[in-house]
Amino acid sequence: MEIALLGGTGDIGEGLALRIARDTDHDVVIGSRDPNKAQNKAAAFNEQLSDAYAAITGESNPDAATGADIVVLSVPPAYIADTIESVHAELTDDTVVVCPAVQMTRDSNGFHTDPPDEGSVLEHAAALLPAAIQPVGAFQNAAAGALKNLDNDLDIDIIVLGDAEASKQTVNSLIEEIDGLRAIDAGGIANASEVEGITPVLINLAINNDGMHDLGVRFQ
Amino acid sequence: MEIALLGGTGDIGEGLALRIARDTDHDVVIGSRDPNKAQNKAAAFNEQLSDAYAAITGESNPDAATGADIVVLSVPPAYIADTIESVHAELTDDTVVVCPAVQMTRDSNGFHTDPPDEGSVLEHAAALLPAAIQPVGAFQNAAAGALKNLDNDLDIDIIVLGDAEASKQTVNSLIEEIDGLRAIDAGGIANASEVEGITPVLINLAINNDGMHDLGVRFQ
Repeated sequence: MEIALLGGTGDIGEGLALRIARDTDHDVVIGSRDPNKAQNKAAAFNEQLSDAYAAITGESNPDAATGADIVVLSVPPAYIADTIESVHAELTDDTVVVCPAVQMTRDSNGFHTDPPDEGSVLEHAAALLPAAIQPVGAFQNAAAGALKNLDNDLDIDIIVLGDAEASKQTVNSLIEEIDGLRAIDAGGIANASEVEGITPVLINLAINNDGMHDLGVRFQ
Repeated sequence: MEIALLGGTGDIGEGLALRIARDTDHDVVIGSRDPNKAQNKAAAFNEQLSDAYAAITGESNPDAATGADIVVLSVPPAYIADTIESVHAELTDDTVVVCPAVQMTRDSNGFHTDPPDEGSVLEHAAALLPAAIQPVGAFQNAAAGALKNLDNDLDIDIIVLGDAEASKQTVNSLIEEIDGLRAIDAGGIANASEVEGITPVLINLAINNDGMHDLGVRFQ
């Protein structure tokens, strides 16, 4: 498969690019508003992965989305709308769109979810996508720092949410190909709000407990 | 310590009573609106734990709260207000009050949090308690079924929330004495909403994944 990481020059994109390229045979394309930046990042990732099989490439977001089997909206939640708009014409009915974003605020107590009006970032993305595309939520609770550090042996769960079973299965398969990740199904996108709410808990735990950082979650 | 489990005849109370009695030297008192029911449950728990040291007793909720070091509001969220009112006169400035309750609704998609106006059940309890008592949130994400089944070797985290550091430490210590539980700090009660939101995720995961039930959570 070809996997486009839109906004893939950011932290979560970097973590996903490195893990997917190292652990699977899929083609990874970094997307960015600035294609030069995407190419530079792709080159840096390839250098870091010099012993891995996959070659990461970099393109503009629309070029990265063109022909991709999976498009990951690895951008901050505030850029979801612009990013979807910029690739709208490139998406087909078969494109699997993945949304890992979580919208948060910070106050003196810690981090909190601050979801868009639709109730969750995932439902926000769903409302902006072409009607034929039902997005999949995944990686919301995966710490970019944990993914990026390839010396870190992961042993965490990735919650998958979606209303289109086939798309969800495609994402499940990708997740299970990445070492140390287990895909688990939390139902449809109407259940995304509480899943996105786990992310600020992970950060609050890291703030309040010595020795905890870049936490993931395991259900057992 | 003396630990009163108000509404301890219910599922979560049963799980906590059995684990605390089996694994620690603390005295466990089951509270109920009906003292006979509390006594009968206590007798049943003692029989189940025949080889354990601790003897569980049963009393009315106010009698159970009297003199208790820790009072656990192990009642459904709709009964928090009545339960606190019924023991209000028995609580002292030193009583540590623990709230494990989560308020949920179910629709066709799954389970969802349905918090009281204060934002969380924990903040709701805080508003009803005497001003000197700052409650501690804990056990919200622990499945009663997992606690009750003493053949089940636990390996899960219990998130602790609270604004009074000393109370939180008391609850931390109790948690760490129970086999297979690790206490971790998620900050103050203003952070409770997202923690309570993990519970419907656990149920939605159990609904959507074969072989998963009575899930707990481990942060790693």
